[in-house]
Amino acid sequence: VKKIGRIAASWGRHAWSIGREDPRRAVHALKAGTALTLVSLLYILEPFFKGIGKNAMWAVMTVVVVLEFNAGATICKGLNRGLGTVLAGSLALLIELVAASAGMVFRAFIVGASVFIIGFAATYTRFFPSIKKSYDYGVLIFLLTFNLITVSSYREHSVLPLTRDRLSTIAIGCTICLFMSLLVLPNWSGEDLHNSTVGKFEGLATSIEGCTACVNEYFRDQDKDSNAPDKQEVKASIQIGYRAVLDSKSSDETLAHYASWEPRHSMHCYSYPWQKYVKLGSVLRYFAYTVAALHGCVESEIQTPLSVRSLFRDPCTRVAREVVKVLQELAVSMKHHRRCAPDVLSDHLHEALQDLNSAIRSQPRLFLGSKHACAANRRMLMELNSGKLSSASRATSLQSCKTDATAAALSETTKPAGAGDQPPERNERSNMLRPTLSKIAVTSLEFFEALPFAAFASLLVEMVVRLELVIEEVKNLERAANFREFTGHDHLA
Amino acid sequence: VKKIGRIAASWGRHAWSIGREDPRRAVHALKAGTALTLVSLLYILEPFFKGIGKNAMWAVMTVVVVLEFNAGATICKGLNRGLGTVLAGSLALLIELVAASAGMVFRAFIVGASVFIIGFAATYTRFFPSIKKSYDYGVLIFLLTFNLITVSSYREHSVLPLTRDRLSTIAIGCTICLFMSLLVLPNWSGEDLHNSTVGKFEGLATSIEGCTACVNEYFRDQDKDSNAPDKQEVKASIQIGYRAVLDSKSSDETLAHYASWEPRHSMHCYSYPWQKYVKLGSVLRYFAYTVAALHGCVESEIQTPLSVRSLFRDPCTRVAREVVKVLQELAVSMKHHRRCAPDVLSDHLHEALQDLNSAIRSQPRLFLGSKHACAANRRMLMELNSGKLSSASRATSLQSCKTDATAAALSETTKPAGAGDQPPERNERSNMLRPTLSKIAVTSLEFFEALPFAAFASLLVEMVVRLELVIEEVKNLERAANFREFTGHDHLA
Repeated sequence: VKKIGRIAASWGRHAWSIGREDPRRAVHALKAGTALTLVSLLYILEPFFKGIGKNAMWAVMTVVVVLEFNAGATICKGLNRGLGTVLAGSLALLIELVAASAGMVFRAFIVGASVFIIGFAATYTRFFPSIKKSYDYGVLIFLLTFNLITVSSYREHSVLPLTRDRLSTIAIGCTICLFMSLLVLPNWSGEDLHNSTVGKFEGLATSIEGCTACVNEYFRDQDKDSNAPDKQEVKASIQIGYRAVLDSKSSDETLAHYASWEPRHSMHCYSYPWQKYVKLGSVLRYFAYTVAALHGCVESEIQTPLSVRSLFRDPCTRVAREVVKVLQELAVSMKHHRRCAPDVLSDHLHEALQDLNSAIRSQPRLFLGSKHACAANRRMLMELNSGKLSSASRATSLQSCKTDATAAALSETTKPAGAGDQPPERNERSNMLRPTLSKIAVTSLEFFEALPFAAFASLLVEMVVRLELVIEEVKNLERAANFREFTGHDHLA
Repeated sequence: VKKIGRIAASWGRHAWSIGREDPRRAVHALKAGTALTLVSLLYILEPFFKGIGKNAMWAVMTVVVVLEFNAGATICKGLNRGLGTVLAGSLALLIELVAASAGMVFRAFIVGASVFIIGFAATYTRFFPSIKKSYDYGVLIFLLTFNLITVSSYREHSVLPLTRDRLSTIAIGCTICLFMSLLVLPNWSGEDLHNSTVGKFEGLATSIEGCTACVNEYFRDQDKDSNAPDKQEVKASIQIGYRAVLDSKSSDETLAHYASWEPRHSMHCYSYPWQKYVKLGSVLRYFAYTVAALHGCVESEIQTPLSVRSLFRDPCTRVAREVVKVLQELAVSMKHHRRCAPDVLSDHLHEALQDLNSAIRSQPRLFLGSKHACAANRRMLMELNSGKLSSASRATSLQSCKTDATAAALSETTKPAGAGDQPPERNERSNMLRPTLSKIAVTSLEFFEALPFAAFASLLVEMVVRLELVIEEVKNLERAANFREFTGHDHLA
């Protein structure tokens, strides 16, 4: 008994946590209970029962099946059920008309054949992408009702009352559902979609920087093992943000589909641009690929030494912080149905990018040399390695730049090549250079380690590029949805 | 009339194309038609009708609702429907027992209260993730049946026959569905899942290289505008591959869920590891993020000049080709339920990586200098910029390497610093260096252009790292699913 009590208590806690996570769930369950009780009254109360009779059951069924969490889903299902029933009823009556004068055997044949043909056609239709998307449930109900009426018609000689009763009870059921769903504490999928979009911006912002996310993590000293469990947490919190965006495709599409059935926004503008949200979602996913790749850089086993990374800590963090600021700004303005500032992609971001650029430029150890310097050194190089360079295609000139730089680095051991005085020494010198060059080739294996950082920086830049796409799409959406004009940065106070 | 004919013809073509895309759809539609006709016979044929009566309708309904495209989905729905009905029937009979001796008003109260409470509880239960995943439909049917019987019990004083009839007709309907679904040309979701996983490998392979995908595209001369439309096609074909992988989460999970209901593989091993497919899918998605990022590099507006890129064309293409080979090898072995070669991650790939590594190393213009060279140059540098370098933290030593390299590059204009003879010239020399350094800083803006290529190369390397994760997961799956042992590369012939 004690064990059962404990299991019940744990289930109770589980149920409570689910309700606390989203209290609308409990509300929806209460609404469903109320709707079912209401529809049961049709059967229990004498006057209703006299009017409708046993077919009140269909109303009960309708309520059970049609009442959904979101208003849009309820409307979609309700209309589908209504439409399917009407169409099926008409078609069944038509066939009944044809079969009315036939004998028993011929009737059986007609019923059987029509059930087969309509069953085949309706099932096949459900594979059409356009039908599957919006009318799948309607086709199902069409098939159900059609079979119900056609098969019944074989034994009952007038199916008109049956059809009428089915229609009216389904109408009653749908009415109750729509009332409960639209007028009593409605849950709009449009609102859910809007909020989830806002949430995506916030999630991406936390993923990118937040407090201790990607970029900070990237530059953190990995040696401190004391916060190893903390690191797992950080990793999880980073992933939550962009994973939610990456996995949002199907839920976005469903919500947008249901939202398009909802009447709520039709008063404000012709038709609310729910599809723009889906489009924004896909642009955000495109953006999130970069975030995922950035996180991949942080997680990667091949790492640039911390000493190199830490050189670029400030500019990188600054770029990331600016990107995060833009995302947060977008989240806030979307949240309040307000247009974002026209200058949301601020100069700060460009400055930060410039800083990163110059930080990288100031470290020629990573990306050394310039065409200019190359040209300047060409003369000396010509004198060192003459002949080889005469076929100066661009590719070989690059190759030569290398030789150039290393040669230059080693030139302190040789006499400066000021003018044309090299020929006799040349052979010895090139012999001297060979071993050193190959030595460099071996030891510079370490320099492959600069690659991950280069990728990291490049991804940061790519992120900014994609951020512009996101902003463009947000502006499209804001225009299409008639958001309030931007009035100033007061919300930031 | 002509117009209607044309519309009908276009619909016909559309329907035909849907069927040709996957002929199993037409087969399924035929099966559904047959099942519906069979179940209608229950009502039409005299002996059956005598036994079952009008409740045969419930059998028809069951067939319409339960018969699904995949065997697993049909079993899942059928069992849910059966279980829900049995549980609801028992509970309803229990309540009926309590209410049996009560007066009419009290009965009405009990019926109403139980409908409300059960309605609330069942709807709330549907929010539990574990229930929602597997038993959502069962709870719906439970609620439906419970309401049906309880409400009926108010007016009919014995609901036992009603309950029995409902159970038996639903059992008949489910039997027909299961027969049609499992024994007549079944579509196994397990097979679909397996094939879609194989397809993912193939899609990723085409995305990465295929014939003209990412990597080739990356190194192709963009100047030839003649194949601009072709480029759009290439882009689309690249995207199809990895997009399918990225968007596969929900369909994978659904298929794996249905597959877990299918009995087919239970003969071979205890329980087929469908969840491993889901896991493999998520690892593949992780891999596909890199492919998406790689494609992002190709699409990016910031590009390394073609001349630089073309230097690395061969090693990059080779790495990509090896990755593609591995993916294709994995696809083939999975397709034939055969373990992949133990050495699938071949030496070729490692060689290709080494080549890429040395290609990058051989281009110090991009990643110049090495700690070794640095150390070798330290002496000269010390003499050039003495004092500054005495606090030789690692970061400043890097900083110095830069100064070092540029200084060395410029040292041809100065006397070689062979031994200790610098003090008097030092000030002039550093004054001389300043303008040149800033000049380099300005002109080397171009060098930021090397970043995108660095990112590209780094992503290639990262891709190989993640490929190992994929291979590991494939091997896990193969072990768990008891694939045939690897016997040799005969399939490649």
